[in-house]
Amino acid sequence: MSLRTCLLLLCLFVCAATRGVADDGYRLWLKYDLIGDAGQRKQYQQAAQFVSVSGQSATLKAAADELQTGLSGLLGQPVPVIGDAKGRKGGIILRVDAQAPDNAGLGEEGYRLYDDKNNLVITGRRDVAVLYGAFALLRQVQTRQLLEGLKISSVPKIQRRLLNHWDNPNGTVERGYAGSSIWKWYELPEVVDPRYRDYARANASVGINGAVLNNVNASPRLLTTEYLHKVAAVAGVLRPYGQRVYLSVFWAAPKVIGGLPTADPLDPQVRQWWKAKTDEIYQIIPDFGGFLVKANSEGEPGPQDYGRNHADGANMLAAALEGHDGLVMWRAFVYKADPKGDRFKAASAEFLPLDGKFAPKVLVQVKNGPIDFQAREPFHPLFGAMPRTPLVLEVQLTQEYLGFATHAVYLAPLIKECLDSDTYAQGKGSTVARVVDGSVDQHAVSGMAGVANIGADRNWTGHPIGQANWYAFGRLAWDHTLGSEAIAAEWTRQTLTTDPPAVQTIAGLLQQTRRIYVRYTAPLGLHHIMGEGIHYGPQPWLERSARPDWTAIYYHRADSVGLGFDRTATGSNALALYKPEVQQLWGNAQTIAPDYLLWFHHVPWRQRLRTGRTLWDELCTRYYTGADSVLWLQRQWAQVQPKVDPALHADVTARLQTQYKEALWWRDACVLYFQTYARRPIPAPFAPPQRTLADVKRLVDIYQLR
Amino acid sequence: MSLRTCLLLLCLFVCAATRGVADDGYRLWLKYDLIGDAGQRKQYQQAAQFVSVSGQSATLKAAADELQTGLSGLLGQPVPVIGDAKGRKGGIILRVDAQAPDNAGLGEEGYRLYDDKNNLVITGRRDVAVLYGAFALLRQVQTRQLLEGLKISSVPKIQRRLLNHWDNPNGTVERGYAGSSIWKWYELPEVVDPRYRDYARANASVGINGAVLNNVNASPRLLTTEYLHKVAAVAGVLRPYGQRVYLSVFWAAPKVIGGLPTADPLDPQVRQWWKAKTDEIYQIIPDFGGFLVKANSEGEPGPQDYGRNHADGANMLAAALEGHDGLVMWRAFVYKADPKGDRFKAASAEFLPLDGKFAPKVLVQVKNGPIDFQAREPFHPLFGAMPRTPLVLEVQLTQEYLGFATHAVYLAPLIKECLDSDTYAQGKGSTVARVVDGSVDQHAVSGMAGVANIGADRNWTGHPIGQANWYAFGRLAWDHTLGSEAIAAEWTRQTLTTDPPAVQTIAGLLQQTRRIYVRYTAPLGLHHIMGEGIHYGPQPWLERSARPDWTAIYYHRADSVGLGFDRTATGSNALALYKPEVQQLWGNAQTIAPDYLLWFHHVPWRQRLRTGRTLWDELCTRYYTGADSVLWLQRQWAQVQPKVDPALHADVTARLQTQYKEALWWRDACVLYFQTYARRPIPAPFAPPQRTLADVKRLVDIYQLR
Repeated sequence: MSLRTCLLLLCLFVCAATRGVADDGYRLWLKYDLIGDAGQRKQYQQAAQFVSVSGQSATLKAAADELQTGLSGLLGQPVPVIGDAKGRKGGIILRVDAQAPDNAGLGEEGYRLYDDKNNLVITGRRDVAVLYGAFALLRQVQTRQLLEGLKISSVPKIQRRLLNHWDNPNGTVERGYAGSSIWKWYELPEVVDPRYRDYARANASVGINGAVLNNVNASPRLLTTEYLHKVAAVAGVLRPYGQRVYLSVFWAAPKVIGGLPTADPLDPQVRQWWKAKTDEIYQIIPDFGGFLVKANSEGEPGPQDYGRNHADGANMLAAALEGHDGLVMWRAFVYKADPKGDRFKAASAEFLPLDGKFAPKVLVQVKNGPIDFQAREPFHPLFGAMPRTPLVLEVQLTQEYLGFATHAVYLAPLIKECLDSDTYAQGKGSTVARVVDGSVDQHAVSGMAGVANIGADRNWTGHPIGQANWYAFGRLAWDHTLGSEAIAAEWTRQTLTTDPPAVQTIAGLLQQTRRIYVRYTAPLGLHHIMGEGIHYGPQPWLERSARPDWTAIYYHRADSVGLGFDRTATGSNALALYKPEVQQLWGNAQTIAPDYLLWFHHVPWRQRLRTGRTLWDELCTRYYTGADSVLWLQRQWAQVQPKVDPALHADVTARLQTQYKEALWWRDACVLYFQTYARRPIPAPFAPPQRTLADVKRLVDIYQLR
Repeated sequence: MSLRTCLLLLCLFVCAATRGVADDGYRLWLKYDLIGDAGQRKQYQQAAQFVSVSGQSATLKAAADELQTGLSGLLGQPVPVIGDAKGRKGGIILRVDAQAPDNAGLGEEGYRLYDDKNNLVITGRRDVAVLYGAFALLRQVQTRQLLEGLKISSVPKIQRRLLNHWDNPNGTVERGYAGSSIWKWYELPEVVDPRYRDYARANASVGINGAVLNNVNASPRLLTTEYLHKVAAVAGVLRPYGQRVYLSVFWAAPKVIGGLPTADPLDPQVRQWWKAKTDEIYQIIPDFGGFLVKANSEGEPGPQDYGRNHADGANMLAAALEGHDGLVMWRAFVYKADPKGDRFKAASAEFLPLDGKFAPKVLVQVKNGPIDFQAREPFHPLFGAMPRTPLVLEVQLTQEYLGFATHAVYLAPLIKECLDSDTYAQGKGSTVARVVDGSVDQHAVSGMAGVANIGADRNWTGHPIGQANWYAFGRLAWDHTLGSEAIAAEWTRQTLTTDPPAVQTIAGLLQQTRRIYVRYTAPLGLHHIMGEGIHYGPQPWLERSARPDWTAIYYHRADSVGLGFDRTATGSNALALYKPEVQQLWGNAQTIAPDYLLWFHHVPWRQRLRTGRTLWDELCTRYYTGADSVLWLQRQWAQVQPKVDPALHADVTARLQTQYKEALWWRDACVLYFQTYARRPIPAPFAPPQRTLADVKRLVDIYQLR
């Protein structure tokens, strides 16, 4: 061992000792730890002897800083940032060039990386593109890809790649399971938490280019001048990292903070108020991104309070944004309480007639499925059905219905399942992804939104695996053709281990997690049978709530005959909202994929499914094997123990224990409850639950207590 | 420079670089950074060459671990933990000895440190005493005290030194300003956050020996078996550090989780339920500390719902605790809504008649003042007035009424002001401290409770200075004779800098902070004039609320004549609740200390005070000079910049900016509002506010929005 190596090891040892714990998850996937393999390290060292950057912009500085920090950590050598490379070799050149013919197809954000006469060039037409390229290069090194002959060109397929924070001004996060809000509104604008910059770095590294800072159940506070200055302080940190801030707006703001008697979108005073407010926002935050609106939904005020429709509301805000580079994202998550209706159809009923009525600056933001972020949903029927309106795909990264912070559920498979669904809107191949990226209907704007799973917990996401969902969202919003397991492997290499067998094991288990979660909570197309209000644990027996469509029985429709919501022509006929090809796919209870069965069909308990089992037996089989699969997750995770940081490994191990306990809870609750209708025994080889339905109900009741 | 020193410096440099930020506040006052002065270091090195410990208890191991970690960090040398010292010199000997005559007066927790033939001995009658002694020794080194000839003996004056966490099961913290709860209930018992141990270490280091884990507005969840196992997991981490867990109880638990028709404390079934529940608790948590109860207060259920009184309720719980080493702390924070009454007298009205009626296991927990944790209050009249009942002093460390996490308010002066107040209960010298420690009335049990200011924020307390309040609470609960500035200096040396002039500057400014806060928010005995509900910012104009005693006008009683609440015989006569000597102190508007003036007297605007100014002029003078004093705080803090970690210094600097902004807000709001009654100009040399009362009201309104 050389003296130098010896010193280095000593330093690392002391650092680890000083830090107390080796890895608390704060650094996310931007770990930049020294590459252990000396030969490999040497190769990278030779290619990264300096970073050359011309220009002084904050964004280029951010790119150079990140490369310097990242590469010096990974390679264990100083990486000076210099100006002109002056013919030097063996370094990294950052080059903004809007004129180069090779950069012509890159748009504003696309980048190219290439090996150019013994230098690595990172180029793009704007500074931010080079920043993205810098993170891409770091990713190459972190995942141990060769740099020789490197040639990558990457352009985002979707323009507005946004996190939606459901964060309240009091510091709580609606449906957040990772601590309080990272936005410290009472301390802003004077106190600018250093964490904001690390947040911006993480977003930039995966291509996220904007953030809606506040909850869609919006506080009017954020629109006051007092708060806009706080927002501006955050915007100032995010700006160099290519991210713009957006705000959710409270529809009645003109009344509540403007003192007007109405919030009618056609009222001239109201329109003037929004115009003036928007101008003020751009005065304070010149690159403000736009508004997100939840209106006339779940008790929120909206234009319908004045006999107007969603387009009237959205277009009024679009008019206020005229002359500014901002957009309106108007959410389609609306459903009137109707015990005889089908919530599945509610958004379509309100929005289909409005297609073509929205101003160009308006996008309609649609959740991946028609109900509400269930563990599995068919794609939302609005995708492909509003050709004249750009649609933003909204997915939920926080695990409201997916086990909070104790269930490992890697969400890329869920997101991909939606993106890859074919709407047949313009014939075969009209996937949701292509509807959203604008290519099916040739839209000029496009967007994708992830409801953030980020909080002030040290590791940002509560469950360490939750970090993979933040990561995957960004990667898929940039390029929806990436594979979910490939993204899992990429994240794993940067975050947990570069050991190839361990990477394979972890990516493999991640890839199964969502399927497993569905199995032990809501198999065969069951949905919305979770605990009332907090959405924690099972509650399929929920019969009464403040609204009929907040119960469970509204959705599962269990009776002595069978189970499932008939949404064919003999039932609610929600299926008719899809194109004929989709109807054909899902319309027949005999041929539909079992995963979607009970979404569309009321199936007799004794009916034999494609799987060869009766519905009842198949249901039990899935609940039991689903819960058992958590033990498989535990075994897989145990295997990689030697390759993963001990503290992090122990954390996930403990969470997998909770997950198994809760999987059994779900299993027992659901089979015991549905058994009261099916009146059949638990099929062999499964042992009936050791507890009674009353036992399980009592347990659920505990978590409903104040 | 020796090679060794060189290596050490290199390591430190690399560590600092690797950590990214130098000091994020997580380590609190347990920093253990290398002593910079080589000569000083060498002296300590010679005295700390090993730690010798006999016995294997978790507590002794914790003591040895802490000494090893702390001393190796401070001294930059390995400090091996060995068994029997076998005559070795130059080390630290941990020795539990219940028989040694010199240990006779130490009780269970007291310790002795002494220099014994070239070893340092830490001894006490139980393991936990040695743990306290270990932290005391570390404090000696951290604060750079000489070890030669060391001879310290310390015994806590108060037995139960408890933090009260107002933490809810959903992770929020009532009146918390440092992020979400550190208790992760959904993840427990499987996931045991490593942070719990660091929390326990910090508590032990200042002598805190217990924690009430949940909000006094209690969830019944905590009493369920499901949650008791979670509580047990926390208890398991706290136990080696000498801390017991306690729970706040929801009075109606027998109904809500027990299924009984009543929660009447005299109902046999109810008594049996509590007995069985208590037995279950001790089965799961053998060293459970006891119950804290908020009953028939602010809407919480209680024994009065069944025509019983507080003693009936408390004694029922005491009966359930028979045979267990647990106590009941029954809060006296009760006040019925009565627009004609005086909230000041409410607790006395309910509790004075019950003195002597409580079972021996019951302590009544009394806030420092009669209203609710205002910036300054006279001591609570119950102190000294219930000689047959042990009283727990409850102080609030979280800054509900003291500026959240943006105002630097060091609370030891406030706590000391109460502790040092003379009740004259048994003649002169019957201070609140001596009432609470039991020496005035010879009680066998005693307690002091601090409502925690701790959250999951990385630095635990939001404002870095807030850490000093956690620290000071523990130190004062152990020994209420310590001086507040001395504690400030001690904390500063361990947390911020050991540079003597900087320590003096910081301790000096800390000592002034509370006085300054009072001046710009509520001088001269004003109280309860803060923003409604959230208690943020000024709102002296608040006239209507859900209860009359939640308004501001109920308390300040401003009119065209004057200002203040007449609590003498001509008014509510609350003053009569005190002993004659105290009445004499405060009963005369001419002679009362101006700090308490408006607590007890309605004073004409034009009346000339002891200060030589009229009331109006004095009021304005205090508001203006108070706000100006924040600039003085800023200047003092700026002076120590070279001696304090840059990130930490910048954080406090920014918070002082917010504090000044808000001090002006308070000042302007209050002088403009009271001016509408006083109808007199702002006196020279002060300039009238640049904004109007309407302006300030609008600003307050913003923070009241949802």
